[in-house]
Amino acid sequence: MPGSTFGLLFTVTNFGESHGPAIGCVIDGCPPGMALSEADIQGDLDRRRPGTSRHVTQRNEPDAVEILSGVYEGKTTGAPIALLIRNTDQRSKDYGNILQTFRPGHADYTYWHKYGIRDPRGGGRSSARLTAPMVAAGAVAKKWLREQFGTEVRACMTQLGEQPIAFEGWEHVPNNPFFAPNVSQIDALEAYMDELRKAGDSCGAKLIVEATGMPVGLGEPLFDKLDADIAYAMMGINAVKGVEIGAGFESVTQRGTVHGDELFPDGFGSNHSGGVLGGISTGQDLRVAIAIKPTSSIRTPRQSIDLNGQPATVETFGRHDPCVGIRATPIAEAMLALVLIDHALRHRAQCGDVQVDTPKIAAHRP
Amino acid sequence: MPGSTFGLLFTVTNFGESHGPAIGCVIDGCPPGMALSEADIQGDLDRRRPGTSRHVTQRNEPDAVEILSGVYEGKTTGAPIALLIRNTDQRSKDYGNILQTFRPGHADYTYWHKYGIRDPRGGGRSSARLTAPMVAAGAVAKKWLREQFGTEVRACMTQLGEQPIAFEGWEHVPNNPFFAPNVSQIDALEAYMDELRKAGDSCGAKLIVEATGMPVGLGEPLFDKLDADIAYAMMGINAVKGVEIGAGFESVTQRGTVHGDELFPDGFGSNHSGGVLGGISTGQDLRVAIAIKPTSSIRTPRQSIDLNGQPATVETFGRHDPCVGIRATPIAEAMLALVLIDHALRHRAQCGDVQVDTPKIAAHRP
Amino acid sequence: MPGSTFGLLFTVTNFGESHGPAIGCVIDGCPPGMALSEADIQGDLDRRRPGTSRHVTQRNEPDAVEILSGVYEGKTTGAPIALLIRNTDQRSKDYGNILQTFRPGHADYTYWHKYGIRDPRGGGRSSARLTAPMVAAGAVAKKWLREQFGTEVRACMTQLGEQPIAFEGWEHVPNNPFFAPNVSQIDALEAYMDELRKAGDSCGAKLIVEATGMPVGLGEPLFDKLDADIAYAMMGINAVKGVEIGAGFESVTQRGTVHGDELFPDGFGSNHSGGVLGGISTGQDLRVAIAIKPTSSIRTPRQSIDLNGQPATVETFGRHDPCVGIRATPIAEAMLALVLIDHALRHRAQCGDVQVDTPKIAAHRP
Amino acid sequence: MPGSTFGLLFTVTNFGESHGPAIGCVIDGCPPGMALSEADIQGDLDRRRPGTSRHVTQRNEPDAVEILSGVYEGKTTGAPIALLIRNTDQRSKDYGNILQTFRPGHADYTYWHKYGIRDPRGGGRSSARLTAPMVAAGAVAKKWLREQFGTEVRACMTQLGEQPIAFEGWEHVPNNPFFAPNVSQIDALEAYMDELRKAGDSCGAKLIVEATGMPVGLGEPLFDKLDADIAYAMMGINAVKGVEIGAGFESVTQRGTVHGDELFPDGFGSNHSGGVLGGISTGQDLRVAIAIKPTSSIRTPRQSIDLNGQPATVETFGRHDPCVGIRATPIAEAMLALVLIDHALRHRAQCGDVQVDTPKIAAHRP
Repeated sequence: MPGSTFGLLFTVTNFGESHGPAIGCVIDGCPPGMALSEADIQGDLDRRRPGTSRHVTQRNEPDAVEILSGVYEGKTTGAPIALLIRNTDQRSKDYGNILQTFRPGHADYTYWHKYGIRDPRGGGRSSARLTAPMVAAGAVAKKWLREQFGTEVRACMTQLGEQPIAFEGWEHVPNNPFFAPNVSQIDALEAYMDELRKAGDSCGAKLIVEATGMPVGLGEPLFDKLDADIAYAMMGINAVKGVEIGAGFESVTQRGTVHGDELFPDGFGSNHSGGVLGGISTGQDLRVAIAIKPTSSIRTPRQSIDLNGQPATVETFGRHDPCVGIRATPIAEAMLALVLIDHALRHRAQCGDVQVDTPKIAAHRP
Repeated sequence: MPGSTFGLLFTVTNFGESHGPAIGCVIDGCPPGMALSEADIQGDLDRRRPGTSRHVTQRNEPDAVEILSGVYEGKTTGAPIALLIRNTDQRSKDYGNILQTFRPGHADYTYWHKYGIRDPRGGGRSSARLTAPMVAAGAVAKKWLREQFGTEVRACMTQLGEQPIAFEGWEHVPNNPFFAPNVSQIDALEAYMDELRKAGDSCGAKLIVEATGMPVGLGEPLFDKLDADIAYAMMGINAVKGVEIGAGFESVTQRGTVHGDELFPDGFGSNHSGGVLGGISTGQDLRVAIAIKPTSSIRTPRQSIDLNGQPATVETFGRHDPCVGIRATPIAEAMLALVLIDHALRHRAQCGDVQVDTPKIAAHRP
Repeated sequence: MPGSTFGLLFTVTNFGESHGPAIGCVIDGCPPGMALSEADIQGDLDRRRPGTSRHVTQRNEPDAVEILSGVYEGKTTGAPIALLIRNTDQRSKDYGNILQTFRPGHADYTYWHKYGIRDPRGGGRSSARLTAPMVAAGAVAKKWLREQFGTEVRACMTQLGEQPIAFEGWEHVPNNPFFAPNVSQIDALEAYMDELRKAGDSCGAKLIVEATGMPVGLGEPLFDKLDADIAYAMMGINAVKGVEIGAGFESVTQRGTVHGDELFPDGFGSNHSGGVLGGISTGQDLRVAIAIKPTSSIRTPRQSIDLNGQPATVETFGRHDPCVGIRATPIAEAMLALVLIDHALRHRAQCGDVQVDTPKIAAHRP
Repeated sequence: MPGSTFGLLFTVTNFGESHGPAIGCVIDGCPPGMALSEADIQGDLDRRRPGTSRHVTQRNEPDAVEILSGVYEGKTTGAPIALLIRNTDQRSKDYGNILQTFRPGHADYTYWHKYGIRDPRGGGRSSARLTAPMVAAGAVAKKWLREQFGTEVRACMTQLGEQPIAFEGWEHVPNNPFFAPNVSQIDALEAYMDELRKAGDSCGAKLIVEATGMPVGLGEPLFDKLDADIAYAMMGINAVKGVEIGAGFESVTQRGTVHGDELFPDGFGSNHSGGVLGGISTGQDLRVAIAIKPTSSIRTPRQSIDLNGQPATVETFGRHDPCVGIRATPIAEAMLALVLIDHALRHRAQCGDVQVDTPKIAAHRP
C-alpha cells in the first residue's frame, strides 16, 4: 500500500491536508453489530483538539466528525465506516512564506525532493492535524476492545522537556492540560511552558502508553510481532523519535536474572517484558514509552536554504504548540488501540476465539 | 499476512524452526539482472553464525545457504529467490524439559496460549536461529543498494551490559568478536563475559545501526514512514526492547532551537533527525540505536509454572550466548537493508527514479 | 484487507451505501504532478449516471464529485485523493419491505447470514451505486495512462438479451443510450427494452472491454497475472457472471495451430491471446468480454422466504434498469483502467521504466 | 506483493523454475492443531503428475514432497509450512533453442521484454510445473475445509477440444486419464488424442469445478467478492482464457424471471447464481467453469521472430501434453480450495464463527 492505510484486518485509510477542504478516514473491517454514533468518537477528538488550553495551538475549530457510512440504525453493519471532518479555520495567509524555503525540522525538504511538488498550507499532508482521523478511528477500536475483552488503553505524560513528571495516579490525567499523572506539578509545568513561549523556543516530551485487561495470544511470531507493530505505530506518530517496550533501554544494563519475568501460580512476578514475549501478548499490562521531539515551528529565526539552495532565514509565525507532545497523548492511545484490534481480528482468523480470561495472569508490577 | 512475510515490494517469506529439517526464505520482487551467487550471501551468514567465538552459542553448523530459484546463469531473473539452509547440528536432547514448563523470558508461555501446541526443540519458531534467513535476504538487499545507490549499511555494539564501548572507528568492528568500534576495550569485554558466564548470568547490549550514501525521498508520508518501518523491523528482532532514530530519547530534553537541524548551501548543519524528516529520508546518514535484553536462557535456576499452573523450577543447560546482542549486529544490518530496498522500490513505483545524488546534502555530523 | 480496497500500489478504498449520506473513495498512490480537477472526473460519472435515458434507473441525482484532498493548485501531490459524492435522491420509502424478505438474485440473504444485520435502503452496500466511486477513480487512472503511454480504454455492448449487436465501429458508442457500436439497431433495441418493461422482466448483456496503446510487460508471472487481475476486477462488478480474455471459451475448440499467435517482424499475426501471454501484456490490444446477468429487481412477483423461513412473495416497485448491463459499460472501462495503472506502477517498482514503444508490435487483428 | 504469494490470511508463496534445483511453496496462516503429513499431500500431487498416462507429458519424476517446517509430531503448529519438491528429471538439452526465438503462445516474448532476461529451461518460471506446489498447498486447504465444514472440492472435464463430454456422475472421474465424468466416451477421447498427436497439433478443454457442503457467508461485499477471487484464481492457472460462475455467459440471454433463484422454506429452487450472491456464498454448491486454451508447444512448425526481430521458424520437440487441460483438473480444485480457506479465515476474523449448517439451504439443482 502507498502508505495511507493502517492495519491489515481493521484498516484505516487516512486522507486530507491541514488546510484542504476536509480530513478524514475510512475504517474497513469493523465487526458488525456494535452500537456506534458520532458521540462515541467526538470525546477523544475533543481531547486532541487544538485550542483547548493556552499551551496548545490556538487554531480553533470544532473538529466535528460526521459518520458517512457503515452504520445503520445506530449499529455497525460490517461495511466501511467513513469519517469526515471539515476544516473550518485555515488562515492560509500564515503559511505563504513556507513555499520558498525549507523549515528546519519539518518535512518541507523531503516532500519537495520526493514529489517535486508540495502543499505548503499548514504543512499540508505532514501536519499533525492528520492524526485527528486516527484518534477518531481509535475511538471505534477502543469501544470494541472494551466491549469484547474489557481492554482499556491509556496514556499520560511522564516528562515535559527537562521536567520529569512524577506518577501519582491515572485519575489525575484527565484533570490537567498536560495529561500529567499528578496535580502537584501543574503550576511548575505552566511556568515552564510560559518561559519557553517567551524564549520563542519549544521542548520535547516523554509519554507512557498502556493497555490493561489484555487478552493473551495477540501478535504474530516472526514479523508483525505485537511489539514490532506497536513500535511501527508509535514511531509513525509525528515527532516521535524513540519507542520502548517494557524495560526498554534499561534492559541493556539488566542481568538475565533480573530481566526475565518469573512465573508463579498467581501470575508473573514482574513485567520487564512490557506484556509481550516472543512478539505475543502475555495478558499482563502492555507497557510502552515514547520520546517526542520538540516542536519544530518556533519563533526564533533559524538558518535554512531556499529552493535554489541559497541561504535563507526562517521565522515561524502563526499558532503552534510549544510542545507537540501534549496533544500526542490521545493520539498514542488511539494508535495502540488500532494495533490491538487488528491483532485481535488476526488471532480470531487463525486461532479462533481470543482468550479474554487467563486466571494465571495477575499482571503483577515490579 | 499471517506474519512470516516481511516487506511490500521486496518481500521475504521466512520459514523453519530451530531444530526442524531446514530454515530458509523466499525473496520475491528482487529486480532482475543483478549478479548473485551463494558467495554473495555466505559472508553475512558467517558473521551471524554461532560457534564463531567462545562468547556465542557453541552450536556448530556451517549454515551453508543454497539458492533454489530466481537465478539463471549467475543473474537474478525477477523470479522469487528461494534460499535454503539445512539444520545439521540439533542435539534435541538438550531441550526435552522445555515442554512441561514455561521458561521465563521466552515465548513458551505465549505460544502455548496462542496456538495450543508448540515445537519445543530449540525454541522452535521463536528461536533466534530464524534470523539467519533474514541475514541471507539482507545480503541480497545490501548488494542491490550498494550497486544502485552506493548505500552502505553497518552496525556496531556501543554498550555491553554495564560496559559502554567507546566509538573509535568503524574499521575496528570486523576485527573483534563483539563487533566493537574500538580495539582497546576487547580484553575488558572478554573478562566481563567470562565473569557473567561463571555467574550463570547474561547481559543486554546496545547497538547503533547506520546507512550511509542514502538517497533522498525514501519513505511514505503518513504510515509506512521510513522511521516507522525501521522501528518495526528493529523491534521485530528477537530480544530488542527499544528503538531510537537520531537523537531518540535525548530529544525529550532538547530545545527546538537545538534539535531542528538547520540547512546550509553545503548541507545540513547537524543530524538530530537521524536522516528522516516527516517519515522520508533526507539523504543524510540514517542513524538508529537499539536496546537488546539479556539472554533469557541462563544456568541460574528460575521460578516458573508448569502446564498445570503448578510451581516449577527451570534450569537451562545446553549452549547459549551470554549476550544475544553480539550476534544481533549483522541481523540489524540486514533488517535495515530490507527496509531500505523495499522503500526504494516503492519510491520508483510512485515517483520514478530514486535521487541518488543530491548535492545539497553533505551529511554533516553534530 | 477486508475487501473495500482495490489495488496494490494505486489503491482505491470505497465507502458508502446506496441511501446513506454519501458515497466516495480514497485513491492512494497516484503519481504526483498530474493536472487534475473535478471536470476530469465528472464526464465518466455522467456516462454512468442513472436517469440519463428511459432505459436506466429513473432515480435522478447529479452525482457531482468533490475532490477533498491530494490536489494542490490543480496538480496531484502524491497524497491520497479523496472523492466525495453526496446522495441527494434517496426515496427510502420504496425499500421498506425489503427488510423482512430476501429478494431473489440479490445479496439480502447472504448479507443477512454473514453480518446478522443489513442496511436495506436501496440495497445498502450491495447496490450498483457503489460503482460510481470506481468510475470516478477510473477516470483518474485513465488520464494518467493516456498521458504516460497513450493507452486508451473503451467498452461497448455486443449483446442485449437475445439481441446480438453488430460491431460497426467505436465512433457509434457515445451516440446512443446502449453504448452500442452501431446506429442501425438502436430502434430495435429500444423496442426490445420496451417489451421487457411491459412484461415486468429484465435481460442480461454482453460487453467487450479493450485497451489500446498498451505497453508491453505489465503483469506478474505467477499470481497477479494481468489477465487474472482483470478477471478479478470484472467478476467483481455487480451482476457479472463470466469473463473471457482473447478467444475465451472459443479457445476450447481451437487447435494449437490456430490459437497460438504467430510473430512476424512487423508484429503478431493474430490476437487470440487477447494481448496477454504468461500473465504479462504483449503490447497488443487487450481484449476482454464479460457476461452480465439480468436485473434481479423486476415487477413480476417472485417466490422467496422471510426472516423466519416462511414462504413470502416479493414484488419489486421503485426504479430499476431493465438491463443493468447498459450502465456497466463505463464501469468496466474504469475497472480495467485501475488494473492497468496498478500494474504499470508495479512494473516501475521492480523493472524500472515501462516500455511504451515496442516497434515489433503492430497489434494485428485476426 | 510482487506476485508469487497467493491469499491474504492463508498465504502460499510459490518459488522455483521448471528445471531449477527445486520448486515449492511456503504456506503461512494454516490454523494450528491439524494432523498433517506428506501422505495427505502426495495424493493430489500424483493426480497432477506428468507421466501418468500416454496423454500427458512423458517427463517422469516422482514429485515427492518434503515438509520442511510448521509441523510438530504430526500436527500443524501455526508456523509456516514449507513444502519442497526437488526437480529430478530435467533434460535441459531439449530446450536450448528456445533462447534465441519466441515460441508462439508462450511467455517467452513477454518475459524477455519485462525482465530483459529469462530462464529458458523448460519455460523457467512460466512452466505449468509451478502449479505443483499449488496442488500441494491445495491439499492442505482441502483437508482443513473437509474437517471443519465438510466442504468438498471437485473438478472434471466436460469438453475436450471439439468433443463434448457428457456428465454421468462424479464417481467416474477418478477412473480415467481424462478426469471425464463418464466411462462410455473414453475410447473416443483416446482416439481423438491420438489423432491430434499424429497431426502434431493440440486442443483446448473445458472443466467444471465445484464445492459442496459450502458454508454460507464466505466472501467480501465489494472487492474480494468470493466469485471475483475465484475468477482471479482460475484465470491465473496457466492457459485458462475464460471463467464462468453459475449460469455464466448463458446469463446474457436469460430473463430476470428465469435467472434469479427463488427461495423456498427448504432451500433455493435453482442455482443459476452458482452459489454466490453479492459476492458472498449462499451455502449452495459453488459452480465454476473454465476454458483452457490448446497447448502452445506443438510439433508443427510455426512462424516467429528471433531476438533481433528477424523471421524465424519454431519447431517444438520434447515432451508436451497435447491438451494441458487434462492435468488442469487437480490444479483447479486446489486453487478453489485455496480461495475458500482464505475466505473462511477472513470471515472468522470479522464475523466470528463460520456458519457450517444453514438448514434453509437445500442446494437444489435446476
